[in-house]
Amino acid sequence: MIGVGLIGTGYMGKCHAIAWNGVRTVFGDVPEIRLVHLGEADQALADRRAGEFGFGRASGDWRRVIEDPEVTVVSITTPNQFHAEMAVAALEAGKHVWCEKPMATSLANAARMKDAAQASGRVAALGYNYIQSPAIRLIGRLLEAGRIGSVNHLRIEMDEDFMADPSAPFGLKHGKASGYGALDDFAVHPLSLVSQLFGRVATVLCDMSRPVAERRDASGALRAVETFDVASCLLRLENGATGTLCVNRAAWGRKGRIQIQIFGAHGTIVFDQERFNEVQLYLAGDDPAEQGFRTILAGPAHEPYGDFIPAPGHGLGFNDLKIIEAHELIRRIGGETARLIDFAEGLEIERTVHAMARSHDERRWVDVR
Amino acid sequence: MIGVGLIGTGYMGKCHAIAWNGVRTVFGDVPEIRLVHLGEADQALADRRAGEFGFGRASGDWRRVIEDPEVTVVSITTPNQFHAEMAVAALEAGKHVWCEKPMATSLANAARMKDAAQASGRVAALGYNYIQSPAIRLIGRLLEAGRIGSVNHLRIEMDEDFMADPSAPFGLKHGKASGYGALDDFAVHPLSLVSQLFGRVATVLCDMSRPVAERRDASGALRAVETFDVASCLLRLENGATGTLCVNRAAWGRKGRIQIQIFGAHGTIVFDQERFNEVQLYLAGDDPAEQGFRTILAGPAHEPYGDFIPAPGHGLGFNDLKIIEAHELIRRIGGETARLIDFAEGLEIERTVHAMARSHDERRWVDVR
Amino acid sequence: MIGVGLIGTGYMGKCHAIAWNGVRTVFGDVPEIRLVHLGEADQALADRRAGEFGFGRASGDWRRVIEDPEVTVVSITTPNQFHAEMAVAALEAGKHVWCEKPMATSLANAARMKDAAQASGRVAALGYNYIQSPAIRLIGRLLEAGRIGSVNHLRIEMDEDFMADPSAPFGLKHGKASGYGALDDFAVHPLSLVSQLFGRVATVLCDMSRPVAERRDASGALRAVETFDVASCLLRLENGATGTLCVNRAAWGRKGRIQIQIFGAHGTIVFDQERFNEVQLYLAGDDPAEQGFRTILAGPAHEPYGDFIPAPGHGLGFNDLKIIEAHELIRRIGGETARLIDFAEGLEIERTVHAMARSHDERRWVDVR
Amino acid sequence: MIGVGLIGTGYMGKCHAIAWNGVRTVFGDVPEIRLVHLGEADQALADRRAGEFGFGRASGDWRRVIEDPEVTVVSITTPNQFHAEMAVAALEAGKHVWCEKPMATSLANAARMKDAAQASGRVAALGYNYIQSPAIRLIGRLLEAGRIGSVNHLRIEMDEDFMADPSAPFGLKHGKASGYGALDDFAVHPLSLVSQLFGRVATVLCDMSRPVAERRDASGALRAVETFDVASCLLRLENGATGTLCVNRAAWGRKGRIQIQIFGAHGTIVFDQERFNEVQLYLAGDDPAEQGFRTILAGPAHEPYGDFIPAPGHGLGFNDLKIIEAHELIRRIGGETARLIDFAEGLEIERTVHAMARSHDERRWVDVR
Repeated sequence: MIGVGLIGTGYMGKCHAIAWNGVRTVFGDVPEIRLVHLGEADQALADRRAGEFGFGRASGDWRRVIEDPEVTVVSITTPNQFHAEMAVAALEAGKHVWCEKPMATSLANAARMKDAAQASGRVAALGYNYIQSPAIRLIGRLLEAGRIGSVNHLRIEMDEDFMADPSAPFGLKHGKASGYGALDDFAVHPLSLVSQLFGRVATVLCDMSRPVAERRDASGALRAVETFDVASCLLRLENGATGTLCVNRAAWGRKGRIQIQIFGAHGTIVFDQERFNEVQLYLAGDDPAEQGFRTILAGPAHEPYGDFIPAPGHGLGFNDLKIIEAHELIRRIGGETARLIDFAEGLEIERTVHAMARSHDERRWVDVR
Repeated sequence: MIGVGLIGTGYMGKCHAIAWNGVRTVFGDVPEIRLVHLGEADQALADRRAGEFGFGRASGDWRRVIEDPEVTVVSITTPNQFHAEMAVAALEAGKHVWCEKPMATSLANAARMKDAAQASGRVAALGYNYIQSPAIRLIGRLLEAGRIGSVNHLRIEMDEDFMADPSAPFGLKHGKASGYGALDDFAVHPLSLVSQLFGRVATVLCDMSRPVAERRDASGALRAVETFDVASCLLRLENGATGTLCVNRAAWGRKGRIQIQIFGAHGTIVFDQERFNEVQLYLAGDDPAEQGFRTILAGPAHEPYGDFIPAPGHGLGFNDLKIIEAHELIRRIGGETARLIDFAEGLEIERTVHAMARSHDERRWVDVR
Repeated sequence: MIGVGLIGTGYMGKCHAIAWNGVRTVFGDVPEIRLVHLGEADQALADRRAGEFGFGRASGDWRRVIEDPEVTVVSITTPNQFHAEMAVAALEAGKHVWCEKPMATSLANAARMKDAAQASGRVAALGYNYIQSPAIRLIGRLLEAGRIGSVNHLRIEMDEDFMADPSAPFGLKHGKASGYGALDDFAVHPLSLVSQLFGRVATVLCDMSRPVAERRDASGALRAVETFDVASCLLRLENGATGTLCVNRAAWGRKGRIQIQIFGAHGTIVFDQERFNEVQLYLAGDDPAEQGFRTILAGPAHEPYGDFIPAPGHGLGFNDLKIIEAHELIRRIGGETARLIDFAEGLEIERTVHAMARSHDERRWVDVR
Repeated sequence: MIGVGLIGTGYMGKCHAIAWNGVRTVFGDVPEIRLVHLGEADQALADRRAGEFGFGRASGDWRRVIEDPEVTVVSITTPNQFHAEMAVAALEAGKHVWCEKPMATSLANAARMKDAAQASGRVAALGYNYIQSPAIRLIGRLLEAGRIGSVNHLRIEMDEDFMADPSAPFGLKHGKASGYGALDDFAVHPLSLVSQLFGRVATVLCDMSRPVAERRDASGALRAVETFDVASCLLRLENGATGTLCVNRAAWGRKGRIQIQIFGAHGTIVFDQERFNEVQLYLAGDDPAEQGFRTILAGPAHEPYGDFIPAPGHGLGFNDLKIIEAHELIRRIGGETARLIDFAEGLEIERTVHAMARSHDERRWVDVR
């Protein structure tokens, strides 16, 4: 039996709740999931969400969740600055931890989390759900099977437009305290895919910029924006491939774009998260007159699509990725192999992001390790 | 409180189970959902699925589900030939009914179901989930707001390829007993969209064909295929618009295509279920040099997307449509207005399908009523 | 040596002039092209266009062009009602004829043209340039090679929006004298493709409609529109395949769409003239996990693309199709095999269109022959 | 009257010949074009091509073309290493020059060409034809009109696959003498677009790589490849915008891709040369529920499309871009304003490429000037 504790009920908190409610119905092969204890900032909100999400108990203090003896795994979905304290506490209390990304707001805290995970012997996984889609798994299998040969070059872009409006007021994400900007909001996602599909980044050079230099604060005064909405990075991977990673949270019209172009000796793969039920595949070996990118629609031939829907081309949704992630987590807890980014791998991702920021500041190539 | 009974646990049964497990977490505004009683063909399977799906009781006899006093609504997801008997029995037992489409294998049975629903005063809804997507709701709102003016012409196609392989053996769906073929497998879906967006079909002319004329049965003998995998229909709607409706279950490469083209006095709307998080909109009023079809990505501006995910462009999945349908059902049970195809509207859809088949047989235009 | 006479210098006249000027530079393997004599409605316009197009002589009377002894082939690009008289006269004068489609405004005139061509022994070709693209040739080769197996079903649509504006005044094309409407404006094009790729149409049923029922004439008075901007047809081909052919000249947003879907026993081909440098091909034989429609970009592997550009994916244009057509015409004149729709094949296309119109009037299936 | 001399009859030579043959027929508003003198490597080939292309005289020595008193403008389409000598000679002979890109194989020669042009007072234009498409002109007008507000970020990619095959032998383009590789083959094209649309590049950082490190030469021996098929560059423009420019001539499946993403304060524009009759435009001002990228199809609303075809959406081809370029050249020769990249602007493009190469060698940011 899995006893679930959930801390936080915002965007990702609800997403975890949907996953915990659905995972057994979808996959069947998992133990009973008991929704034990929900923690929120205050008791009233905790009670309300516990009702909606189906949790048995609710607390206005997250420590109650961690202390609950019936809880065996804790979902941490609070703002990033709380991840380290909560995750370390949960691990020290002997719980498995499923923590949203990015790990922490400082490299030191991320390292502390990794150490705590190692010391605990518990499963400590990060919520990098984009790696879970059938499409990304298909890409992984194509690469492993050498279908496009040895990969020599990558291009990755992640763009949304929630920071694009120049007339929007100065907010938390414009202040230095929130981090670098697009680099930590976005770059960690593509880096999770790079990490799973290609391994470690060796060296980076990043250039960041501010599409909107000043914004008005609540008082109407102009304030200089301190974070960077745009970052463009050159990469060299440890495996010898080169690449680019570009992120932009002020890209009008992009809503959830993560485009990946993978160039190999014998073919090319292209993917875009905005159409994440599709993979584009070009194989050099086809008859020259019939060569072209194929649009492969996700279906039961692409695990674990078939656990959701027996018919191909019907489409999984974003929330389904979290259900798959929950399933992988349960497998890992049960001692099986699973596709997850644990705290050790997550720390490497954080290290890469910080190296990128340094390469911008120092205007030079920086080695990740 | 909603007390759920579920009969059948195949493709659609699992889909209902996912919906019942997720609807309250997603929408919040619904009463407690209690998964009371699951019915399957035998007790062992019923017990196993009840565990996976989270149901409290399980029976090898569907009548036990209907008789269960804690059950207030019954999901019927069994093969089509059982729908009428089960739905009528459930309605007569005072339960609300959520029955998968198509209604029944004969027009008489469909009419009987409609009568039973009317007599019962209960909610009796059909599982036409494609009408529930944010994209289709957006299209409905665009039409109501007159954004493309009065609609004068429609083209609808629904295609999949599960019957495309000529070497696949003769199966149940190739025998006359299974119905007309693509017409009842597929045409009801586009007709549910037509019904919701444009109203009734007045007159039809249909031509059907068999891409594969003969298939080998289990004994290796060639048997003539009796159903039609392809149907092409001309339509005239009661509102004066003309249109075509084409279905093909032997269309290699199509996996879940339902393409709709809606032509109006001031614009055009195009939609394809294979990319159901997108709507194509062309408005004549734009500057001529800047006119073009816009690809609108579903987001919180398109209800009820925001109940699933607060960020736009992240994509709902097929199973999410059933969660929305469950929510509409609960609203209707609670006396609120809801977007559902009830047994009366479903009967009209069946009537249209049968008129199409007759127009093929008699090779002439046939009025639906 | 080819001695060219050109009658008419509108849309298609200029297109022929571009083709005659370019064909030898593009293909190299043709005799010298001499631009001999241009005919227009009056001498001044004829003189002006002769200068622009590079013709040596110009006349305000088309008969002068036909009588010119240096002219060996006559391009006829005048309004449809003049085609028959001019083509017959040119053929009787011993000239080869390249006449724009549709052939004529009546079936009788089309038949007269065909008879004149037969009697003359000259080449008499129609300007169905869409059959000339490398993409359509590729489709032809794929079909001949059996790459998608035996074709069982077709869907063709041709749509533009030049008649879509409801506030545009009553014009020539709204009066009965101009013909049926979209049927003769558009349907002949897809039928030229059907004729070349699949052979003859056996029987048809067509439904036509008027998106805009009334328009104001120059005096401001409302007049009933007499032609049909929309036509939807069911087809049965002589080879046994079924299909649909839908045309709409009031389809907002469509600019030059001719979409063709070809369903075969082992695959599917999709093409759209708005992106006519691309072909979509789905082959059932691919690994199930890697199956998908391939987007094949036209290149030197697809004749005669390489005569225009040695690099693939750079794109031919609409006018290039006419250059290819001119090349085919020259080959035919030189006694070689060529891809052209001659007057005999053109007459079959006209016959099909008239059968469609009759099937609408009589609201029943009509055999073409 | 324009007296044309053409030197070289390969890929671009034929393209110029097509343009010179077609420009007056397409545009009408230009003086008579006389095809005077064609130069090739030997007399026999020159004679043959002169016949095909319609030139009056032919020489096996290019100096005869330049000396011909009837020649007023010289098309130079020979291999890059000959451009400087020929262009300077032609300018010194008082001819206008239309020279293919890139300008020269060394910066010194490019500077010499620019000086010769300045000294001559003649028109000296480079064959950067991608700037001529109606789509790129539309983008220019959208930017000038402020439709997407101030541009803050760009991403440009140019990819083809003619160097992708690892088993292809060592060739001229793999030796250092041919230049840097993708940088001079490809980067000049996107830079011509940047130059026209956004102005000068201020500073660059480039990383280059070799997808195939060794290839076999004619003798079967393995040789180290000396050029770089892949280059990825970070850019800062003089106008303050940042960007990336990535080129890859070993990108399987890409045939003529030049993708441009332009991010502005109020919208986004996306373009891809493989579908160069389309522009994607996103405007932030639209109703949030109806926002999306519009696919604008080139038509008469986009100059000079209408000079080729009066109907929209029918598509120009690659060779048509050269016809437009010829028209601009003729306008410039006639003293009118024209859209062309002259030798001065071309020199800036070369300077940028060389700065990119240096930034790779020195692994640091390099200022272009």
